Amino acid sequence: MPRVTDHPERRAAFAEAAIDAIGVQGIEALRLRDVAARADATTGALTHYFDGKDELLKAALDTIMERLLAWMDAVPGPEAGAEAILDGIAAGLPVGPEEARDWRVWLAFWGRAVASEALRDAHRAHYDRIVARLVADGFDETSADALIAAVDGIGTRATMDPELWPAERQRATLARLVRPLLP
Amino acid sequence: MPRVTDHPERRAAFAEAAIDAIGVQGIEALRLRDVAARADATTGALTHYFDGKDELLKAALDTIMERLLAWMDAVPGPEAGAEAILDGIAAGLPVGPEEARDWRVWLAFWGRAVASEALRDAHRAHYDRIVARLVADGFDETSADALIAAVDGIGTRATMDPELWPAERQRATLARLVRPLLP
Repeated sequence: MPRVTDHPERRAAFAEAAIDAIGVQGIEALRLRDVAARADATTGALTHYFDGKDELLKAALDTIMERLLAWMDAVPGPEAGAEAILDGIAAGLPVGPEEARDWRVWLAFWGRAVASEALRDAHRAHYDRIVARLVADGFDETSADALIAAVDGIGTRATMDPELWPAERQRATLARLVRPLLP
Repeated sequence: MPRVTDHPERRAAFAEAAIDAIGVQGIEALRLRDVAARADATTGALTHYFDGKDELLKAALDTIMERLLAWMDAVPGPEAGAEAILDGIAAGLPVGPEEARDWRVWLAFWGRAVASEALRDAHRAHYDRIVARLVADGFDETSADALIAAVDGIGTRATMDPELWPAERQRATLARLVRPLLP
């Protein structure tokens, strides 16, 4: 439950600072005081908003998930044609510095979720929303699963090996996997 | 450089113990003494073989990579037909408890590799071997990338949400993505 003195903008700024920090140093080495410093705040101010590391991480995951859903909203519908849809999907892959940072955080979460049922639950709830969106767009469930798997697999590889995975290689791999699923 | 008193079987046993431990508790909480206890050894015996956590993790990653290459060797050639090839590929997804444990370790590595260039280098070297194998089998490079991305994406989702991702759902998603790539 939010405390009465909470300011949503302040929470959001701390979540963004956590995303920046995780993207550089990973989750394991993350310290609350580093995140606070990135947000020009004291550790005390940060812990007023978040009870601990896991709650801060959850807020960072939620922030990234909101961006992911906004990205899906920007993908054009079937009338735009397969290439425009592919371009729209490719825009959410780690093709630029901000997307690459979000993907690094994403991978860091997966790693931590291995040992955290709470993080896996949050992850499942987000993916359920994505599947529901794709099904509403006319994909059957297997095609929705396939599309998500293609994006996750390409994004993971490009995040692990950014120098060898420029945007063109990600787009070509995406097209090879996803074009047969498109109208 | 291996020390003169090294025994490969002992190293391998420690690596397997590390895989078991990471599969349960993740990497962050992993302690050398837990791994030693799982291998019925002292922490001193373990540190005789591995200089620290990262070296032990690297051995665990190598072990999983060897299993992954053995799995690829068991996938039949084009003469077997698309369904037999799909069955062979699906056998390496997290469809049973041992594969699921290896996948949990895999995700934990990705998470840690975000902040470790050495782990990313090891990862890249392994994936280069997989691509080379697929190209030798007749796939072009984009199809090889696509096949790897499909497996990684499906394996990740099934690892994060094992109850909702039985073997049949993994196999169906794999078929949807990979059948168009097969002869």
